[in-house]
Amino acid sequence: MPFINVNITKGATNEQKAELIEGITDLMVKILDKNPFSTHVIINEVETENWGIAGRSVKKLREEGKTANISKK
Amino acid sequence: MPFINVNITKGATNEQKAELIEGITDLMVKILDKNPFSTHVIINEVETENWGIAGRSVKKLREEGKTANISKK
Amino acid sequence: MPFINVNITKGATNEQKAELIEGITDLMVKILDKNPFSTHVIINEVETENWGIAGRSVKKLREEGKTANISKK
Amino acid sequence: MPFINVNITKGATNEQKAELIEGITDLMVKILDKNPFSTHVIINEVETENWGIAGRSVKKLREEGKTANISKK
Amino acid sequence: MPFINVNITKGATNEQKAELIEGITDLMVKILDKNPFSTHVIINEVETENWGIAGRSVKKLREEGKTANISKK
Amino acid sequence: MPFINVNITKGATNEQKAELIEGITDLMVKILDKNPFSTHVIINEVETENWGIAGRSVKKLREEGKTANISKK
Repeated sequence: MPFINVNITKGATNEQKAELIEGITDLMVKILDKNPFSTHVIINEVETENWGIAGRSVKKLREEGKTANISKK
Repeated sequence: MPFINVNITKGATNEQKAELIEGITDLMVKILDKNPFSTHVIINEVETENWGIAGRSVKKLREEGKTANISKK
Repeated sequence: MPFINVNITKGATNEQKAELIEGITDLMVKILDKNPFSTHVIINEVETENWGIAGRSVKKLREEGKTANISKK
Repeated sequence: MPFINVNITKGATNEQKAELIEGITDLMVKILDKNPFSTHVIINEVETENWGIAGRSVKKLREEGKTANISKK
Repeated sequence: MPFINVNITKGATNEQKAELIEGITDLMVKILDKNPFSTHVIINEVETENWGIAGRSVKKLREEGKTANISKK
Repeated sequence: MPFINVNITKGATNEQKAELIEGITDLMVKILDKNPFSTHVIINEVETENWGIAGRSVKKLREEGKTANISKK
């Protein structure tokens, strides 16, 4: 049943994506006792010029040395 | 008004996608009496390594001969 | 596999929603040969003041006698 | 940066939802080294008559004793 | 054509939501020369315990006096 | 907090996308007093054969000289 949509900027490796799919599915099973066979995870990879934070694209922020972590405590 | 977002793995032909758009729009008109001219259908095609079921990517499942139909009765 | 998200304004009956779920699933099976048991349809019902067309909420448009079919040919 | 949208049927407790938010955020930090302060998780709770699997609503399936786990191995 | 989905926590007034719908539609017309009559804006209002930032729900953060602006410069 | 998902057909320039990100963020700050640093805008660019209006793909409509503005008043 659960359907999880993960939006991230492009750049993750296939190994990292596989880890995300496995980890999120495990959480659904452990926390909500969901059936893994009907648990769907979709990873949506977004170009950095198509993701804006604080009114600027991540691409611009990174070109200026500001990672998207601009809001890191 | 209706906005329908269809998420499928990559691989459908343009003819199949045209059939989906037409079929779904017809359903909205027939069942809900919606105006076809304000009925929007978007097809989101997902890479098989970006779609996970049962903690594994569809790509891996297919490489092992298990289609996404692993949950087929 | 397919995951279909249907956004409509509030007002559909349970029978209509059941017909939509059945009809959309049948399309996936007929057109894309998908497994009905891994075909998910979610209906997202939106309040009329939370859906805008032409810069106005559907609620306002309907109050002025303009249905969302304002763009009906 | 990451934005994760979790679609589940209604019924999770606030504690379970808090665990999901925490667990998913931890995965983003551990696997992708993301900044937790710009990691957003939204939980979308869907009525059981608005979620369809195999052409039937989860509400109907459950009334017939078939949980959404109908595809459980 | 454009379909804009605005996810915010619950709490906006109808006037604010009307302003958002109008403002976003105007941007589409001004910047992309889109037809306002086929520009759809949906506002998705999320309960504060269903929106997580930095692993905690906005509800918890606000109870501790930390608004979601925890990442404000 | 706000997360805005802008769905448009492919074709916008990077400058137009930057204007959209900036304009939408400004609206969130001005109308809802949101923190720009936790305001995320994602632009989802859709192929014209994957976007249907009135049961036809935008690609087909444009090939027949009908722009997506078929519903223009």
